[in-house]
Amino acid sequence: MLARESDPTGLHRVLDDRLVLPQAAQRLDTRRELWPDEVRIRVEKLNLDAASFRQLERKHAGDGERIRAEVLEIVAARGKMQNPETGSGGMLVGTVEEVGERSPLGLSVGDRVATLVSLSLTPLVIEDGLAGWDGHGEQVPCNGYAVLFGRSIAAVLPDDLPADLALSVMDVCGAPALTARVVEEGMTVAVIGGAGKSGSMSLAAARRAGAGRTIGIVPHQAEGDLLTQAGLADEVVVADARDPIALRDAVVKAGGPADVTVVCVDVPGCEGGAILATAEGGTVVFFSMATSFAAAALGAEGLAADVTMLVGNGYVPGHAADALDLLRADSGVRQLFERRLA
Amino acid sequence: MLARESDPTGLHRVLDDRLVLPQAAQRLDTRRELWPDEVRIRVEKLNLDAASFRQLERKHAGDGERIRAEVLEIVAARGKMQNPETGSGGMLVGTVEEVGERSPLGLSVGDRVATLVSLSLTPLVIEDGLAGWDGHGEQVPCNGYAVLFGRSIAAVLPDDLPADLALSVMDVCGAPALTARVVEEGMTVAVIGGAGKSGSMSLAAARRAGAGRTIGIVPHQAEGDLLTQAGLADEVVVADARDPIALRDAVVKAGGPADVTVVCVDVPGCEGGAILATAEGGTVVFFSMATSFAAAALGAEGLAADVTMLVGNGYVPGHAADALDLLRADSGVRQLFERRLA
Repeated sequence: MLARESDPTGLHRVLDDRLVLPQAAQRLDTRRELWPDEVRIRVEKLNLDAASFRQLERKHAGDGERIRAEVLEIVAARGKMQNPETGSGGMLVGTVEEVGERSPLGLSVGDRVATLVSLSLTPLVIEDGLAGWDGHGEQVPCNGYAVLFGRSIAAVLPDDLPADLALSVMDVCGAPALTARVVEEGMTVAVIGGAGKSGSMSLAAARRAGAGRTIGIVPHQAEGDLLTQAGLADEVVVADARDPIALRDAVVKAGGPADVTVVCVDVPGCEGGAILATAEGGTVVFFSMATSFAAAALGAEGLAADVTMLVGNGYVPGHAADALDLLRADSGVRQLFERRLA
Repeated sequence: MLARESDPTGLHRVLDDRLVLPQAAQRLDTRRELWPDEVRIRVEKLNLDAASFRQLERKHAGDGERIRAEVLEIVAARGKMQNPETGSGGMLVGTVEEVGERSPLGLSVGDRVATLVSLSLTPLVIEDGLAGWDGHGEQVPCNGYAVLFGRSIAAVLPDDLPADLALSVMDVCGAPALTARVVEEGMTVAVIGGAGKSGSMSLAAARRAGAGRTIGIVPHQAEGDLLTQAGLADEVVVADARDPIALRDAVVKAGGPADVTVVCVDVPGCEGGAILATAEGGTVVFFSMATSFAAAALGAEGLAADVTMLVGNGYVPGHAADALDLLRADSGVRQLFERRLA
């Protein structure tokens, strides 16, 4: 019997004494039986978050047996794969096994899906002891089940693209979606980290949204050559994004300042340069997890810069489908992604 | 001799090995001598940022002597008052002592001004050991000097309002200005920390911008009574903003979810609740310096929440004058501010 009523956030599966959201919980209820708005997935693969896997690798000095043992321990203890050190999870691939009668996710039994919410809040049971994984690498073959809540997100994997390629696109699909929302016809758009996964997608999204000029900023010439070959930016500029004055000057020289600046590079200290590279009245979208809230807020104030600053929300409705379309339509994007998987 | 050329951002006073903006710098050059576009202020008072002061208070268990000693240490070591933990600063009041021949700020010697850029990027020398401060409270009597750059902002204190009152309004003038930009006719607006300084101003700004319903969220009944008396919110709700479900339910009960949620309360952990209290397609404005970028970004993604999240930029052109007008026009706001100063 399901005594508690379900909540779309998954609150009803939190076992902690203090009521917190699943992501913040120490332990989740992993019972197989579904609440009416839930979906159960038969898991085939876990995709561990890079920061999490790296921490485990360091801790166990690369010993695959011990890494595997710790992942099993974490999932058994917490009912979810959330690295206690990094707080991060990852995503998973699997097949829909059962759909609750009131699930709003639009999934059907048999759909092959990737989850777009973090493993750090997804109830998970591993049933094969991860026998197919040697503990080396973030891709973890796995038999078991996971549960999605009413408000979770999962995307059906497309038939026309290799699963790994689709997955790596879905992993960053929030960035191009938000970029497309912000960019208007004729705008100048600068993307910091333009040759990376989220950066190249953002450049492609900006162009599709009608940007008048796109500027890709990369940290060194090798990345610049890649981006130039891919043909995704009108201007490719090599600059250190942590040096605010160098960044400002580089963007201005390439036709800026930018109406929209998208920060996609995962190094700390890019806030000031991004603000200075942006025109008065323009917008900065921060997609890097290395962004400091205080550095952005106080940086803009300290520069008397009238810019709108957005926290890059990884969720925009339809983001996964749109990102896959972008990849299909743009051979430059596809080329960059395939190169990264090779 | 001034070897380096001045930059309006204050770059020429950064002493770090790596070239960063003054806000990000470990240490600033506090020499008295001015570059041609600078202004020197004789300081009479520092106004520490609330999050910064509270951190110091917690760290030193309210011991005023030790709090004062740490502020002195920070300013001596860094050449600016920037709390290393919170990254935030505050503002100052003083009198213009010298104006560089190429200063664009329009100030004259003898003007009594408040700085509207953060202390976290303002070169500062304390000359009286803060002898007039007992370490209790954010208002710090201080004799010393500070330097403004070409791009800094300072406002001359108005004649018709007591200085303390004007100052405490200017301190938070970015919040109502940005709120007014985001709120449209008929919207439901929730302000978390509605009885506080930035919160009450934001409520007043939302109403003036045409909000259909304003909801003020406060942590306990005493604050609720204050806010009710001031008449600034259509609904006053007592809720713990760190409890996401309690906050969501409280806002919904008061007529939400909100089209715009403004976070003005300086405690960590309010991101999830603010996101859940906001309608799909709505906007969350984070004005609290206690905001975590990662908690906001991952929180929204984990909840599949399609909300626009803004980093509260403390600078909007005309913000100080607008905020003073709001105070003059709204007796409820004035009452709350005067009460806080009493």
